[in-house]
Amino acid sequence: MSVKSPVSLSVIRRLPRYYRFLGELKKAGCARISSRELSEKMGLTASQIRQDLNCFGGFGQQGYGYNVNSLYDEIANILGLNHQLNAILIGVGNLGKAVAAHINFEERGFRLIGLFDQNPNLIGTVREGITVMDTSYLVDFCEKYHPVVAILCIPKSAAGELCERLVTSGIKSFWNFSHYDLTLRYDDVIVENVHLSDSLMTLGYRVNERFKQNQTQ
Amino acid sequence: MSVKSPVSLSVIRRLPRYYRFLGELKKAGCARISSRELSEKMGLTASQIRQDLNCFGGFGQQGYGYNVNSLYDEIANILGLNHQLNAILIGVGNLGKAVAAHINFEERGFRLIGLFDQNPNLIGTVREGITVMDTSYLVDFCEKYHPVVAILCIPKSAAGELCERLVTSGIKSFWNFSHYDLTLRYDDVIVENVHLSDSLMTLGYRVNERFKQNQTQ
Repeated sequence: MSVKSPVSLSVIRRLPRYYRFLGELKKAGCARISSRELSEKMGLTASQIRQDLNCFGGFGQQGYGYNVNSLYDEIANILGLNHQLNAILIGVGNLGKAVAAHINFEERGFRLIGLFDQNPNLIGTVREGITVMDTSYLVDFCEKYHPVVAILCIPKSAAGELCERLVTSGIKSFWNFSHYDLTLRYDDVIVENVHLSDSLMTLGYRVNERFKQNQTQ
Repeated sequence: MSVKSPVSLSVIRRLPRYYRFLGELKKAGCARISSRELSEKMGLTASQIRQDLNCFGGFGQQGYGYNVNSLYDEIANILGLNHQLNAILIGVGNLGKAVAAHINFEERGFRLIGLFDQNPNLIGTVREGITVMDTSYLVDFCEKYHPVVAILCIPKSAAGELCERLVTSGIKSFWNFSHYDLTLRYDDVIVENVHLSDSLMTLGYRVNERFKQNQTQ
């Protein structure tokens, strides 16, 4: 299967959602599905689905639809879920602890190999079977184990200096829960941001707008 | 100030980011900033910034730029950060606990007034000064206190039945960390989704693609 590259980020961001829906169909024993049926389930248009999947070479057969099992496997393959990228998580506070515990890394194509914090009360404690290490050990750890992804669950104030150490140590990919804008400083890094409070403020705006609309009706 | 409505969701989603950057400028004692300077700081184009802010009536003055303090306050106002929308959080597991502890709700325009779980070991415990209640009390609670937003930190399997109870009880706005697709079932609800594992899989795809590119170079 040939991938027409580069595939746009908005298509890529929809892939995990296809993967989830196909996983459910598979679990429900559904063997095949038309793009029309899939579109109804997912709230997308059938043409959007065909276009998206065509970016990766198609998969559907005219008059038959998609084979659920093989499309599920193909998307897992495209997402690289079998790759087990080594990741470290920095900042084992409330959020870091929850991310370490809540996410099934191996099912998502990652392996969590290190936890770091600078808080003496946390260093040495064990989370998810991993002993929390002192952030002063980060550079040595990277040299020895070559993690490819860093998960940042640290406050913005701590992120600048820490990211410099990480990038210098060869880490170019970040799952970023901090409010530090990595891409403004490093143009060759890959960053997926999770800005929780931005998401909450967006929700607030939309709720308040609806209130206003209802008042004027 | 007149708001040209409806403003597109992508503009709205950038507002919290403007708010964050302006907050930093304000803290740094910066009194005014041109759209060009702001664009360099934020990694957007100056024309994008002018267009975005024009959706809400402008604010800039030709040859002067933006007054940082007043733009910060205006955006806070647009986002409704002074409104204190009543919210309840359901699912006080790892993720729910972290969301309750990590997010400064009052600064984001919300007030957390209830925590719910169905786990007997959690019911009655106190988190962030709030006693965790049994989900069986949800309908009564909503009738009494009229929360407007529900934060869903529950597994998808539990979400269907629970959302039905919530929507019936008058909650139409959700901050959704579960993988349950609310908008497919209810077309009049406002939902901001935080799909953590989708974000992680997107990162994995991008990292793997870069590996492939480097190999073929």
